[in-house]
Amino acid sequence: MLKDKFRLQIPGPTPIPPRVQQAMNRPMIGHRDPDCSQLVREISLRLAPVFGTKNPVLLLAGSGTSALEAAAVNTLSQGDEAAVVVTGAFGDRFANILSSMDVTLRRLDIPWGKSCSPEELTSFLKKHPQVKTVFLTYCETSTGVLNPIRELATVIREQTDALIVADGVSCIGGVPAGVEDWKIDILVSGSQKALMLPAGLAFAAISDRAWKRIETNPHPRFYLDFRKYRNSLQNKTTPFTPTVSLLFGLEEVLNIIEEEGLETIFARHRLMRDVFRAGMRALGLTLLTDDRDASPTVTAVRGGDSWSATDLSQELRRLGLRVAGGQQHLKGEIFRIGHMGYADPLDMLTAVTAIEVALARLGAPVKLGAGIQAAEEELIHVSSTDH
Amino acid sequence: MLKDKFRLQIPGPTPIPPRVQQAMNRPMIGHRDPDCSQLVREISLRLAPVFGTKNPVLLLAGSGTSALEAAAVNTLSQGDEAAVVVTGAFGDRFANILSSMDVTLRRLDIPWGKSCSPEELTSFLKKHPQVKTVFLTYCETSTGVLNPIRELATVIREQTDALIVADGVSCIGGVPAGVEDWKIDILVSGSQKALMLPAGLAFAAISDRAWKRIETNPHPRFYLDFRKYRNSLQNKTTPFTPTVSLLFGLEEVLNIIEEEGLETIFARHRLMRDVFRAGMRALGLTLLTDDRDASPTVTAVRGGDSWSATDLSQELRRLGLRVAGGQQHLKGEIFRIGHMGYADPLDMLTAVTAIEVALARLGAPVKLGAGIQAAEEELIHVSSTDH
Repeated sequence: MLKDKFRLQIPGPTPIPPRVQQAMNRPMIGHRDPDCSQLVREISLRLAPVFGTKNPVLLLAGSGTSALEAAAVNTLSQGDEAAVVVTGAFGDRFANILSSMDVTLRRLDIPWGKSCSPEELTSFLKKHPQVKTVFLTYCETSTGVLNPIRELATVIREQTDALIVADGVSCIGGVPAGVEDWKIDILVSGSQKALMLPAGLAFAAISDRAWKRIETNPHPRFYLDFRKYRNSLQNKTTPFTPTVSLLFGLEEVLNIIEEEGLETIFARHRLMRDVFRAGMRALGLTLLTDDRDASPTVTAVRGGDSWSATDLSQELRRLGLRVAGGQQHLKGEIFRIGHMGYADPLDMLTAVTAIEVALARLGAPVKLGAGIQAAEEELIHVSSTDH
Repeated sequence: MLKDKFRLQIPGPTPIPPRVQQAMNRPMIGHRDPDCSQLVREISLRLAPVFGTKNPVLLLAGSGTSALEAAAVNTLSQGDEAAVVVTGAFGDRFANILSSMDVTLRRLDIPWGKSCSPEELTSFLKKHPQVKTVFLTYCETSTGVLNPIRELATVIREQTDALIVADGVSCIGGVPAGVEDWKIDILVSGSQKALMLPAGLAFAAISDRAWKRIETNPHPRFYLDFRKYRNSLQNKTTPFTPTVSLLFGLEEVLNIIEEEGLETIFARHRLMRDVFRAGMRALGLTLLTDDRDASPTVTAVRGGDSWSATDLSQELRRLGLRVAGGQQHLKGEIFRIGHMGYADPLDMLTAVTAIEVALARLGAPVKLGAGIQAAEEELIHVSSTDH
């Protein structure tokens, strides 16, 4: 079989659109060249609607975690109290970052696969009225949960003066975001998920309220100091060497996003989620999350009685479809597929039929065609009503 | 929806493997540079097994038709008699080429969608014992028929001294070929089908017997004179400017072919054909060709009672799948998909599910999942026995 041919259907990195790949191959320019300054400034402004912010979005050369840590070190200092809502591996990542700082960590652990409810957060915050920053995960990549950060932000605002930080790495660009409207203070993301780029570029959208804290926060920091990024941006540049090729690519990504339109993009992501979930359900597979909590960008499915998620992933790989496994205690228990960025509903049908074949090859009880039938029905139904 | 994202499933051009695309982006070199000479020589030799020839394969800068015409003008001259077996639009192309020459054309027309049988050809040749060259189409792109050129060549050899020319444009690289073993005299092909390249490069594999005719054939010719190509190849070059980027790409194509191995490639193409046909049949659609005649590289399907092939193609295009329509009198009557080159069985499942959705959107009677079930069964069955 064709060894090199595969569909990259993991929850990031995601496939790069050919137009973006071509843009990244543009001849290199100096990062202090006026052309690069123009690019940095335009990108910062054009990203703002994607994050739902009125301020230019900051661009960090780093992976998503660099922006997560930046959100912590710019808003907390020695002795402060911080709260983290942990719904999976990336909430845990926030907790690990905070553990590396001299702050008091208050941790709200939610069972993996479930979202945090406003009620749970309300009770938790009642016990910890002193927290200065609350860290939320918008889409939890490890489970496919989309936390209701808008509602969570509301209860935080009602109860405390804490800043609200949200990790949107695995969903921004595929779901709505409202730094302004939802009163999120810092929303961070990375380039390699719904934003259709290779990894290496991180983003931070920051509210005016957060800037007040950031300006005077005494925690020592240099590379991750948001103030340096804002100051440099006023001169249309970055404080340290930017990822020029990724900026070339991002300019083209923004063209693609603006051509399709954010609302259409969000509808496409919801449709992919619904088509894939309908297929899995009809095959009798167990989805890790309830419909209510399901992210439009990533879906996790449990292994079966007679087959492991790991075996299934290997069979899928042989068929030319690459999916991801579980993390931490879900390793071997689930497989995950990403459906974000440069992906469409037909990719979901391809994934469902591949899973049917892989299950049959594993000797699992599977009614061939049943998953596809349900997935197709979902696609036909939704397309005829919403599109 | 993502406007730029689509699966190119037409019978050529076919998708370019990323490795090949990258190879074509290598910095340009002069075509009389020793590096280019080395490339031309190696490619000519490495192509030989793909055509089943012991002689180096000639490389023409041109589309497939240039090589078809070259086969005519190098083997026929004024007043000669030539026979063409016409099983579709590309047999017709041969006839049109011959009509532009001052030769007597004997034409054996077979209904489109059927192959030419050895018996039909035998009776035909009995009526025309003077023909000097017989033109055959190996895979007829317009119908998806694979003519039994091995058997046809046998009856030609038994009855006449005519040279045997075969058009392998839409199959070479995806099906076996035997210039030596099958006693074909000239086998031509193009770059943009099973050979996974953009169009612009044509190939001719030529037997020793054909060379005797070519050397003395008096028909006027310059660009298409095979003798010039053979003479230049002895100096590791081409008589006219070669398509350097396509040669870079072809070198990588040959790497890919040699890594997978010809027998595995042929099995993959047969499997794609069988998976797709099983799906179409289970959906109650009418295949243009019988199983016996069906090419491993392209399949044609008729429109239905309540829907036209054109409408279906448009629906598929909206879903992100591009297929081709019919040619000449089959325009609007059929749709065609290519399954050759950089394509795998999962592409066929994707095509089948897309067709199910498109039929439902057209209001056609379709049992969702029925085509996929049959296609998956074919894949699972064949893979478990042959792979």
